[in-house]
Amino acid sequence: MVNVSYSVLFDKIKKSLVNAGLDEHSANLCAEVHSQSTLDGVNSHGVNRIPRFVEYVEKGWVRVDCSPEIIKSLGSVEIYDGRCGIGVVNALMAIDRAIHMARENGVGIVALRNTTHWMRGGSYGWRAAEKGLASICWTNTESCMPAWGGEDQKIGNNPLVISVPRKQGAFVLDMAMSQFSYGKLQSTRLKGGVLPFFGGYNKVGEITDDPAAIEESRRILPMGYWKGSGLSIMLDAMAALLSEGLASHQIDRVGKGSGTGASQVFMVFDPRHFGGEEFVEEMANGMVDHICGPLPCDTENSVKYPGQSTLERRRLGLKFGINVDDDVWEKVLELSR
Amino acid sequence: MVNVSYSVLFDKIKKSLVNAGLDEHSANLCAEVHSQSTLDGVNSHGVNRIPRFVEYVEKGWVRVDCSPEIIKSLGSVEIYDGRCGIGVVNALMAIDRAIHMARENGVGIVALRNTTHWMRGGSYGWRAAEKGLASICWTNTESCMPAWGGEDQKIGNNPLVISVPRKQGAFVLDMAMSQFSYGKLQSTRLKGGVLPFFGGYNKVGEITDDPAAIEESRRILPMGYWKGSGLSIMLDAMAALLSEGLASHQIDRVGKGSGTGASQVFMVFDPRHFGGEEFVEEMANGMVDHICGPLPCDTENSVKYPGQSTLERRRLGLKFGINVDDDVWEKVLELSR
Repeated sequence: MVNVSYSVLFDKIKKSLVNAGLDEHSANLCAEVHSQSTLDGVNSHGVNRIPRFVEYVEKGWVRVDCSPEIIKSLGSVEIYDGRCGIGVVNALMAIDRAIHMARENGVGIVALRNTTHWMRGGSYGWRAAEKGLASICWTNTESCMPAWGGEDQKIGNNPLVISVPRKQGAFVLDMAMSQFSYGKLQSTRLKGGVLPFFGGYNKVGEITDDPAAIEESRRILPMGYWKGSGLSIMLDAMAALLSEGLASHQIDRVGKGSGTGASQVFMVFDPRHFGGEEFVEEMANGMVDHICGPLPCDTENSVKYPGQSTLERRRLGLKFGINVDDDVWEKVLELSR
Repeated sequence: MVNVSYSVLFDKIKKSLVNAGLDEHSANLCAEVHSQSTLDGVNSHGVNRIPRFVEYVEKGWVRVDCSPEIIKSLGSVEIYDGRCGIGVVNALMAIDRAIHMARENGVGIVALRNTTHWMRGGSYGWRAAEKGLASICWTNTESCMPAWGGEDQKIGNNPLVISVPRKQGAFVLDMAMSQFSYGKLQSTRLKGGVLPFFGGYNKVGEITDDPAAIEESRRILPMGYWKGSGLSIMLDAMAALLSEGLASHQIDRVGKGSGTGASQVFMVFDPRHFGGEEFVEEMANGMVDHICGPLPCDTENSVKYPGQSTLERRRLGLKFGINVDDDVWEKVLELSR
């Protein structure tokens, strides 16, 4: 691991993206999202993802010259075609537009089709919450998990993000539909450990906590078994319906890498049009007191609200620097030259 | 078990409700929802619930004389105060109003506060889907489950319902945030069995599949462990925010039984304003082919889409009658006299 500061991380990522052909503005936006994700501990969709993103740009799977185009406006809903442009830039446009609409009318819904990987979904929930708004966002993905009762990869991990603003720390849930990510399987295997709970099936169909066996079978478990499987299916159908876009089985046929062709939804609500900022603040603080206890929840084992660990990690990263894998950093330095 | 027809079931439930003081119209609406739930195999919130509902009415916890009142209109969002009226009647008003708004403008969102138990959440998802609309509905509840990492009951099971219309069988997900319901724990215990997966902790904090041990500790597991816990918290905060209503920790203080004081959200989307009915039909059929396979998924062990088993059960119930617990039926017959 190499320890880098936020500003150095941002700078090197931005230079890599400019070298890959992104314009100054897009490179700034993407570098911010990738750096922030890394700062928050989500390296997989932060700095680690830069080489693969650059590869997608080079292959033409992500079109750096394409901007989203509005297809339809239904008052509080707008539908955009992402034209396979940069997923992060498209998603930032979508959440910002939904934020704008919510500030005007209370609610703003933007549905985005034909987009590319939005990287860390939580980025968009945090963005709304930090501006004082609540959000529900999700994306569908290519098929990467068996449905409950099945063996082959048929459903997406379809991350769902929900955020509620709070001054002392927003509530931000960022949750894929698989119980564990392939990244978690890999890191657990490399440490020689087992998963804390069943994470999938081995090749002969036995449920297991052995990460290597699941990596081999590709039979990863949906979170909550049939529940996560059902939720994944519904989020997929709803994203395709609202964006007039592709569902997972259609994204599979696009064949231009992970996330290319995805359908996304960004719903934003402005508390000022509902009970007001103070109402939400009081409600959220009451929830923290109730769920986490009256004392500050700052110990390793205390009950946490969604987003709390991320915020703690962010504060530590800004103070002590951010840990990046040596090989990844070497690769990014190379791309940035 | 006693086997009854849908019409007899409806008739006896309706008479029980009229005897409890419901007007003709409300009794019809509630009898339909309770009978339909029973027909669909959800007896717990169907016929089994009638004695308890009548008890709540008698105690004044459910106010049969109160109708919902509109508090605020924000264009595509309306907020209502349920005034602790009949939960089913309030929720039907809310979903029907959201359906009406969606038909007009593409989207309709109704948030409902100070309502009472809506019984089976799926009822509202099916209602939208059967009229050709898609929906996302949820309710918060009193605290009934420990948050992830905690021991005491601090979060609700906050059922989430998502539906998408489809001619050959709608997609309807109806999912509480606990991995298993207390009803499932009880029925498994009575059969002398164990749960198919871990369902909670015993009194000394060990994770277990023994239903009796979990009933004793009340430490039921959220579905997907930390994931269901986080989703429960977010659905609670979002329901309270949108309805300007109570969150779970505030519902706890109402102290008028299960569900009294809850906050609910009903979002409805009309496909005709989006890609059209045929677009959604084709997308949904493509999903079924992909997920369940090209053959009709009618065997016990095949992969099913959300709602498929319910529909199969409904068809069987209409053909062969509906099984109702003897004691429950005796009690309902008594209430109906």
